[in-house]
Amino acid sequence: MKLLLASRNAKKLGELRRIVAAEGFSVLGLDDVPAFPEAPETEPTFEGNALAKARDAFAATGLPSVADDSGISIDALNGMPGVLSARWSGAHGNDQANLELVLGQLRDVPDERRGAAFVCAAAFAGPGGETVVRGEWRGRIIREPRGENGFGYDPIFVPEGYEVTSAELSAEEKDKLSHRGRALRLLLPHLRELAQ
Amino acid sequence: MKLLLASRNAKKLGELRRIVAAEGFSVLGLDDVPAFPEAPETEPTFEGNALAKARDAFAATGLPSVADDSGISIDALNGMPGVLSARWSGAHGNDQANLELVLGQLRDVPDERRGAAFVCAAAFAGPGGETVVRGEWRGRIIREPRGENGFGYDPIFVPEGYEVTSAELSAEEKDKLSHRGRALRLLLPHLRELAQ
Repeated sequence: MKLLLASRNAKKLGELRRIVAAEGFSVLGLDDVPAFPEAPETEPTFEGNALAKARDAFAATGLPSVADDSGISIDALNGMPGVLSARWSGAHGNDQANLELVLGQLRDVPDERRGAAFVCAAAFAGPGGETVVRGEWRGRIIREPRGENGFGYDPIFVPEGYEVTSAELSAEEKDKLSHRGRALRLLLPHLRELAQ
Repeated sequence: MKLLLASRNAKKLGELRRIVAAEGFSVLGLDDVPAFPEAPETEPTFEGNALAKARDAFAATGLPSVADDSGISIDALNGMPGVLSARWSGAHGNDQANLELVLGQLRDVPDERRGAAFVCAAAFAGPGGETVVRGEWRGRIIREPRGENGFGYDPIFVPEGYEVTSAELSAEEKDKLSHRGRALRLLLPHLRELAQ
């Protein structure tokens, strides 16, 4: 079955593709279909943004579509950066600036209050209907970046039960544990059912 | 009666002094007393920080002491910058950087979701005991700074019922309306009673 992954973030697309392709879906990206106007991510929730993106992609292409919206939710920032994770420093998609800003904001926050969660809402829209699910990955924010894998806030996030950052995990390890892996695995039964 | 205002922020001290002095208290600042070690503001609430500062000042000087902790709580940022208002951009006390960061973070947030409140916790610690109160000032965050008065986030905050920013109000108007004015007026009866 063909499935459109409605993301323009190359690294995120890679993660989504790996996880979904392993389930036997034939995966297309936005570069494989004619361009269509994409709505900005202005919903106040991950779920709202993911669903809007999947819905727009399905409406424009007729292909069963999966989209995600994800980010990091930091306890000491009342759950922010949240839906603003990719533009936390004001500019969009500057991983380094976003990460350094978080480290600066948390400089005086003691170790026992540095809890956080990576959150991913994954949405599907297709001929059979639409659905949205949520995956979370708890951990804590450290004080200096470590690791070269992953992207975004990975170098400052140490998952619960680990001593390494998510940027120090291999892609395969990360997929097993991550918010995006969890959300997509929650979505798979719906995909199989709704896409028929 | 002598009252120590435990703040090192000159503009904030000016506001506190104006409001409290009008009530007939003889106001001292930290520069008028011997130096003592000041604890960093690491509490997760305005109230906790204000009380810690007032308590430290009273313990060190024996003078009835008032302290505040204040900031801006923005709805679309889940109540942040909150206690991190003065160091939101990572550096402490860079009003311009903090304000520009907020404008960048809210760039895609539509007008109907730009609500905010200035919040001030004002604490007293003296021989008669201690107390802490909270004043709030609701409004919204605009898209370009306006006005030269005040400090901090004043140029991007338009109070409810107004069309001008709090940086376009005179000091006297601001004192009547502001979070700091409200909190201090809530504190005054306690001051009179507890300081005796």
